Amino acid sequence: MGNFQVRTDLALEARESISEGDSELRGVRVEEYYKEQEDVRVTKVMIDTKNAAKAMGKPIGVYVTMEAPAMVEPDDDYHREISECLAQELLNLLPEAKEEKSVLVVGLGNREVTADSLGPQAVDNLYITRHIVREYGKAAYNCEKMNMVSALEPGVMAKTGMETAEIVKGVVEETSPDVLIVIDALAARSIRRLNRTIQITNTGIQPGSGVGNHRNALTQESLGVPVIAIGIPTVVDAATIVNDAMEKLLEEEKELDAVKYAGRQTVNFAELNNMYMTGKDIDAVIKRVSYTVSEGINLALEKGMDG
Amino acid sequence: MGNFQVRTDLALEARESISEGDSELRGVRVEEYYKEQEDVRVTKVMIDTKNAAKAMGKPIGVYVTMEAPAMVEPDDDYHREISECLAQELLNLLPEAKEEKSVLVVGLGNREVTADSLGPQAVDNLYITRHIVREYGKAAYNCEKMNMVSALEPGVMAKTGMETAEIVKGVVEETSPDVLIVIDALAARSIRRLNRTIQITNTGIQPGSGVGNHRNALTQESLGVPVIAIGIPTVVDAATIVNDAMEKLLEEEKELDAVKYAGRQTVNFAELNNMYMTGKDIDAVIKRVSYTVSEGINLALEKGMDG
Amino acid sequence: MGNFQVRTDLALEARESISEGDSELRGVRVEEYYKEQEDVRVTKVMIDTKNAAKAMGKPIGVYVTMEAPAMVEPDDDYHREISECLAQELLNLLPEAKEEKSVLVVGLGNREVTADSLGPQAVDNLYITRHIVREYGKAAYNCEKMNMVSALEPGVMAKTGMETAEIVKGVVEETSPDVLIVIDALAARSIRRLNRTIQITNTGIQPGSGVGNHRNALTQESLGVPVIAIGIPTVVDAATIVNDAMEKLLEEEKELDAVKYAGRQTVNFAELNNMYMTGKDIDAVIKRVSYTVSEGINLALEKGMDG
Amino acid sequence: MGNFQVRTDLALEARESISEGDSELRGVRVEEYYKEQEDVRVTKVMIDTKNAAKAMGKPIGVYVTMEAPAMVEPDDDYHREISECLAQELLNLLPEAKEEKSVLVVGLGNREVTADSLGPQAVDNLYITRHIVREYGKAAYNCEKMNMVSALEPGVMAKTGMETAEIVKGVVEETSPDVLIVIDALAARSIRRLNRTIQITNTGIQPGSGVGNHRNALTQESLGVPVIAIGIPTVVDAATIVNDAMEKLLEEEKELDAVKYAGRQTVNFAELNNMYMTGKDIDAVIKRVSYTVSEGINLALEKGMDG
Repeated sequence: MGNFQVRTDLALEARESISEGDSELRGVRVEEYYKEQEDVRVTKVMIDTKNAAKAMGKPIGVYVTMEAPAMVEPDDDYHREISECLAQELLNLLPEAKEEKSVLVVGLGNREVTADSLGPQAVDNLYITRHIVREYGKAAYNCEKMNMVSALEPGVMAKTGMETAEIVKGVVEETSPDVLIVIDALAARSIRRLNRTIQITNTGIQPGSGVGNHRNALTQESLGVPVIAIGIPTVVDAATIVNDAMEKLLEEEKELDAVKYAGRQTVNFAELNNMYMTGKDIDAVIKRVSYTVSEGINLALEKGMDG
Repeated sequence: MGNFQVRTDLALEARESISEGDSELRGVRVEEYYKEQEDVRVTKVMIDTKNAAKAMGKPIGVYVTMEAPAMVEPDDDYHREISECLAQELLNLLPEAKEEKSVLVVGLGNREVTADSLGPQAVDNLYITRHIVREYGKAAYNCEKMNMVSALEPGVMAKTGMETAEIVKGVVEETSPDVLIVIDALAARSIRRLNRTIQITNTGIQPGSGVGNHRNALTQESLGVPVIAIGIPTVVDAATIVNDAMEKLLEEEKELDAVKYAGRQTVNFAELNNMYMTGKDIDAVIKRVSYTVSEGINLALEKGMDG
Repeated sequence: MGNFQVRTDLALEARESISEGDSELRGVRVEEYYKEQEDVRVTKVMIDTKNAAKAMGKPIGVYVTMEAPAMVEPDDDYHREISECLAQELLNLLPEAKEEKSVLVVGLGNREVTADSLGPQAVDNLYITRHIVREYGKAAYNCEKMNMVSALEPGVMAKTGMETAEIVKGVVEETSPDVLIVIDALAARSIRRLNRTIQITNTGIQPGSGVGNHRNALTQESLGVPVIAIGIPTVVDAATIVNDAMEKLLEEEKELDAVKYAGRQTVNFAELNNMYMTGKDIDAVIKRVSYTVSEGINLALEKGMDG
Repeated sequence: MGNFQVRTDLALEARESISEGDSELRGVRVEEYYKEQEDVRVTKVMIDTKNAAKAMGKPIGVYVTMEAPAMVEPDDDYHREISECLAQELLNLLPEAKEEKSVLVVGLGNREVTADSLGPQAVDNLYITRHIVREYGKAAYNCEKMNMVSALEPGVMAKTGMETAEIVKGVVEETSPDVLIVIDALAARSIRRLNRTIQITNTGIQPGSGVGNHRNALTQESLGVPVIAIGIPTVVDAATIVNDAMEKLLEEEKELDAVKYAGRQTVNFAELNNMYMTGKDIDAVIKRVSYTVSEGINLALEKGMDG
């Protein structure tokens, strides 16, 4: 049933659904390692060629996935460790710079819809420095190097009447940051990845991705500066979950011709469009993981000063 | 496939799933009428006997369902008409009183989870009068009769450590209202009822109902005063929707023994527990329908003065 | 004591403090009328010359002040009337257009500080159409003319690290609106004007104005498009109120040489910098008046379609 | 000018205004110590007699004031130290208990008015355990002793129609906690104490105290269980600040008979009633200090387990 159009924002899941029966895909390299102390499994998927990009449905670039099973638990010390791990992966993807960087962090999504509020909530806890450095210089922080960090919460099209990409592009052109970090809530295919996985990629945000389904790209190509995207899957597409449940059922029975159903189902599930599935404690979860993300960024940009 | 445990908080849906093939259920009376001007279909399900209550899985009492297809649309005039319709149905269920009433309105649910925030948001727009009447008398409003309206947002157990029922019971005993109106977000079985249906019942809130699955009852029996519950379905249980999709599939094929699957599925879908499905524009929808509910209550309690 | 630096964002108050003892100021014209039905007093201050602008401490332009004493009261019908009055004054100031206009509404201020949240809250209730018109054309609204309305909440510098003017300028350049409407909470000199007064001006926002003291201008000169500013005074500067109280005291006594105190006081009141005074019910007031403002804009831009 | 009715919720300030010229007040004992590492000055005012209580305008009991000048600064490590200091002082005031305690924490104030939102925001970050212990026993936390912590945000009378004391009393009677901890934003006399001072007292909350001016008492006498109150001054009364400014002025000049003004001023400043003064960055400050308070309570109630 590989011809189902299953929606996932995770490169890790895209690869899984392809590689069954095709253990090596040309143009895709995968590295894995396990950080024992933090109980974090890191997978790097590197898509190197156009063909591989087409097969994966994801653009050429590096996709780092951190799987941290206990990320939904309320353990402050553990979250600190994940933040440090995120900071390290983020620094690996950030373009090198001898001098300080000006970094614009963009919190995508809708603050009023809990499952889509990761970006706005993460932006709330950033350590913002650009206006201080511009007014008082680095001396304000008693240090020789100091990144300039700014942040933007562009809001969603239903409330602004503008594409997120229009707003971000305008602000980028006016304030000229060296690099963008974009935070967004993602859709996963598997319930067990919800809120336990962080994806970091240097490919930016693609059209149709995120809980809110962004319509335009936020990429180096469209914006003129490198774009690092940090995402956490907080929802599962309703249609996806129904498909998955049905596949399981069918596989067990082997009585039905799976392909026969594929076409029909699209009609049946039309009403599932624009629906998503999420957990009942999503408010507590988002509060916690958004803080983990903002701390990761804060650490990376502080550390960036010393490098 | 009637032996599926399908979760619905709507008496209307409970009746539908039973009455197929059993067009009249003893002890259950149904009245329907259509308000053409408002495009609102009203169904009253009256459960009169213990047997009927058992068959329906709902306690003895009156369940009024208003189906207003355009309730999700942003048309202020239309919402005013639904509010007036709600006010009328509410007055029909409220206990008669020659004198003014003291009414405590309780907004159940979690303000931080959008789909569960109907109760708290509705309470925000109520016209609160109890403290004024108690301090300055009815004279403060230049009228001879004046209900005393108070409101409470008890919060959810994960944040308070207390059952909602404990908090409400304590406040009821301390402030002695004549009647309770309880507002809650519900789970429906059918996606097409989401946010388009208002249920009003004189049976209060049962354990296990609502988006947050209240564990204790809020009823006349438990609280000592009449309890009117107003609910709007804002979510569909994840397990329910998967079951429904599968039923459709199976019905079309007639190749499979439906009963065979019933038992197995419970195991497969365990991970769907505590998940729910909702729409992407749920913030705008809740903002609008919560206002419709609070206006309905405001109108009913003002009108109550004249009666 | 005219040499006190008293802070007010209201042209009406600036004129009052000048015109005492100098009943006519050259280059300043004033028109007044009273709308009896709405109980709204409208004052138009037109500053026509550079000299007058210097004397008033306000740029050349038109300043319309609506004084509506009952605006703090919770009377829905009355607020509707004020919204209609605001819509009319707004249309008078908007540049004429044969064709539809593209209007960007900017809600200035800090959503997290109640007295400064007028702009963000007003933007929440706007009728946003730009994205619909761009995607589906005017046909989507069944009408021949349709303004394109978009909205932006830029946030405050402490949270973004960017000047409000940088963000607005970038978005204006990217989305090319025909006109800007900017909403902001203002500082008044007099407590009795708080939350009862709406100022509409075609001069935009000046540096140092608003509760948040914007550092850069948002004007036609700086942005390249006409900028209409709508403001409501929600705070009184702490230093101003102390000065005013003291002036009253001194005037009554006539024993003290006022000028003698002027210099000293600046030192004494240094700790009042960045302090403001506001009312205890500011949350209810802002909720109500922000709705009045958004309804006024909604009416003006709908009406604009018919003209 | 001691006959001015100056409003302060701080026992420290009440004592200062009295003790000028009367260095020792009978029935009032004062202990001071300075915690050098934390840069926190602790003052304990113990009011022992009815006469002293009358002179101070505060009931018999212990008032601990922690002055932490850097509490407004965004230094996480420093806030941790203040939280630990608060936890220690809190444990000193909590009634001893061999067994675990059931503690109800009440967050007073209005979440929608920034300067009054200390209580509600502090309650958001508490570690709530009562529902877990009741359902799963102490085993859920792998420990032998475990306090049961619950929390309540009663809201303000304008929105509930009920006195805070009615709601709290009802919940106390229903859930029978061993002790109450009540958190509230206070009014100070001096601007330099704003947001830098924590007061902890075993006298509970008195009528007329707090930013919202609570009308009824929350005390052991009214509720039947010990009540510890934690407060931070976030506002200065508008009338108070005008008086203070004027006193300064008059003292410098010595030309005026201060008493002469005292009577008159009440009339002049009537419009200042229900006004308060606060800082422009109050949102960031409350976010930080509310977290310091909730961490202090979390530490105290965890530590309580070990004792």
